Amino acid sequence: MQARITLDDVAALARGCAVLGTGGGGDVRSGAIAARRAIRERGEVPLVTLGDLPDDALVLPLSGIGAPTVSHEMIHAEDEPVRIKEEIERIFGRGPAAVMSSEIGGANGVAPVAWAARLGLPLLDADAMGRAFPEVQMVSLYVAGIPANLVIMSDAVGNVVTIRPVDGLWSEAIARAVCVASGSSALMADYVLTAKECAGAVIEGTVTRALAIGRATEGAQDPLGALTAELGAVRLLTGKVTDLERRTTGGFARGTVTVEGTGDDRGRTLTLEIQNENLVAVEDGVVRAMVPDLITVVDTQAATAIQTEGLRYGQRVTVLAWPCDPLWRTPKGLETAGPRAFGYDLDYRPVETIAGRA
Amino acid sequence: MQARITLDDVAALARGCAVLGTGGGGDVRSGAIAARRAIRERGEVPLVTLGDLPDDALVLPLSGIGAPTVSHEMIHAEDEPVRIKEEIERIFGRGPAAVMSSEIGGANGVAPVAWAARLGLPLLDADAMGRAFPEVQMVSLYVAGIPANLVIMSDAVGNVVTIRPVDGLWSEAIARAVCVASGSSALMADYVLTAKECAGAVIEGTVTRALAIGRATEGAQDPLGALTAELGAVRLLTGKVTDLERRTTGGFARGTVTVEGTGDDRGRTLTLEIQNENLVAVEDGVVRAMVPDLITVVDTQAATAIQTEGLRYGQRVTVLAWPCDPLWRTPKGLETAGPRAFGYDLDYRPVETIAGRA
Repeated sequence: MQARITLDDVAALARGCAVLGTGGGGDVRSGAIAARRAIRERGEVPLVTLGDLPDDALVLPLSGIGAPTVSHEMIHAEDEPVRIKEEIERIFGRGPAAVMSSEIGGANGVAPVAWAARLGLPLLDADAMGRAFPEVQMVSLYVAGIPANLVIMSDAVGNVVTIRPVDGLWSEAIARAVCVASGSSALMADYVLTAKECAGAVIEGTVTRALAIGRATEGAQDPLGALTAELGAVRLLTGKVTDLERRTTGGFARGTVTVEGTGDDRGRTLTLEIQNENLVAVEDGVVRAMVPDLITVVDTQAATAIQTEGLRYGQRVTVLAWPCDPLWRTPKGLETAGPRAFGYDLDYRPVETIAGRA
Repeated sequence: MQARITLDDVAALARGCAVLGTGGGGDVRSGAIAARRAIRERGEVPLVTLGDLPDDALVLPLSGIGAPTVSHEMIHAEDEPVRIKEEIERIFGRGPAAVMSSEIGGANGVAPVAWAARLGLPLLDADAMGRAFPEVQMVSLYVAGIPANLVIMSDAVGNVVTIRPVDGLWSEAIARAVCVASGSSALMADYVLTAKECAGAVIEGTVTRALAIGRATEGAQDPLGALTAELGAVRLLTGKVTDLERRTTGGFARGTVTVEGTGDDRGRTLTLEIQNENLVAVEDGVVRAMVPDLITVVDTQAATAIQTEGLRYGQRVTVLAWPCDPLWRTPKGLETAGPRAFGYDLDYRPVETIAGRA
């Protein structure tokens, strides 16, 4: 593991986070811009592990909340993290010792570099999803049984809202409402917990993993092959985008994307169901991959991830799918973020089982 | 002034608060039920003035927020005030010394008796409106220039939300969104301030005034005459309800009511525009009274106030209007809660001026 995130790391981190974003998680470019600017102004950001922190050190899990269509215009890198830190000092009588990404997938995986730099804090090499998810309660901390008892939100205007929800579902409902009232975009601390509480409740090593994914394609002769190998992914289909249906409702970007196979895949058609993230991939009425496993659309040539908002008719793409963190395959994990949590009447089957690999 | 609110006072207080509710402010019956139950269980509630409190004593202005059509089913008298008190103790390191009604009009004028009893605290003989208003920022504290920097909300489920808004308008937008997410009903502390800060920023004596209004009709030969005299009101029209249009949107009960004159008023028609409260009274295209002056529909026989939700076709009613507190007639007061604040393109004229009295 490296000791700090440098200016040169930001591009690889952003590429990796985009791949882990499974189509959602906000636009990584805005996160990368914010991260570079903050590193230039405040210096490189130390990357620490849980073992580097005292047991009682406060970890601050941060994420942007909002529809990707709106939040890519927001940076959340100036006063918002400072206001959240001040609120934590008021509540706990001490400030946080490290920033953690709540969601390594998408902009929320990159922007914490900026937030940590602004606060003069290290970044924890961990997150609470191992990917991107659209709802506040879909975090490893919730699955691990840590009560969702504190959410702090800060918007671009300067409003600060502290929520003490009775559970994760109320947390999501209220935070989403506050987000919409704040112009559909806010910075959020979801849980504030000690390093000791983080052990076993966060997904460790995910910043390092995002960096490795981002670097896998650097200078590769076969970027798609290199990325597929790094991810341990199943290639679902290579083809072109032939149909796109997108809408933003209730703070979510929803839609359906159709990819028709080309080359070896000619004659096949894959449909993706999207709620901020790519959730279900269907071919001929058969599900080939489903949430919480990761499904990402990449440019077939460059193997760069294409987010939902960047999808265009006629694009040449490959759809990859690979296993989620084992935590999401537990009964509580599937209850929280399995297909039924998103309204799909499907029994979860691991992507590698469907592909006949396991 | 009396020293405490007794079980026997609740009915008169509720009648007075209903009159001051100008058609809105929630159903006083739910507030009265909660107040009686709390007094029975916890004892009578001391009524104090600002002068009775030390300068640094914390005053807790409480109100229910939500559409009247929903909130009449809610009582907010059990755990909600306790949770707000606990949050104040967390934030200020000490608890409140007195409860204040944020809004003397409607249920929010009566229910604070219950909230004070539950908390074992006295009730301050004051409020922040002198009537009822539909929006969070429409309070004397805002007009007096006190920054709207803290709102604490507690719902029936147990969620507690603390808002540090940049101003009163953001306070309203976020609190309303949280309210809708919480099932369109919540208990709210809007501002928490010291007794010293209250001086000149709250409307004093309004609990006593509501009691006097409620008692004016008790045993009166001519209840309508007695109430009109007590209020110093202009009688706009006596007649019957001939048209009603009501809808609940965005947490507000909106509507239009038409009253056709009977008896001496035969041939005349008055129309009331409603947004939770009665805001504008128009006769033949001429405005006869408008917000922030008070407009209340009463039963012609009993002189009891009829709230918007209680209006029915064919009811025999009299529409009364009387002057608001002078604070609402200042430029900042009119900007906050004058006709334009509700979207009516009208220049404010005092009800007594329109009536040719002044």
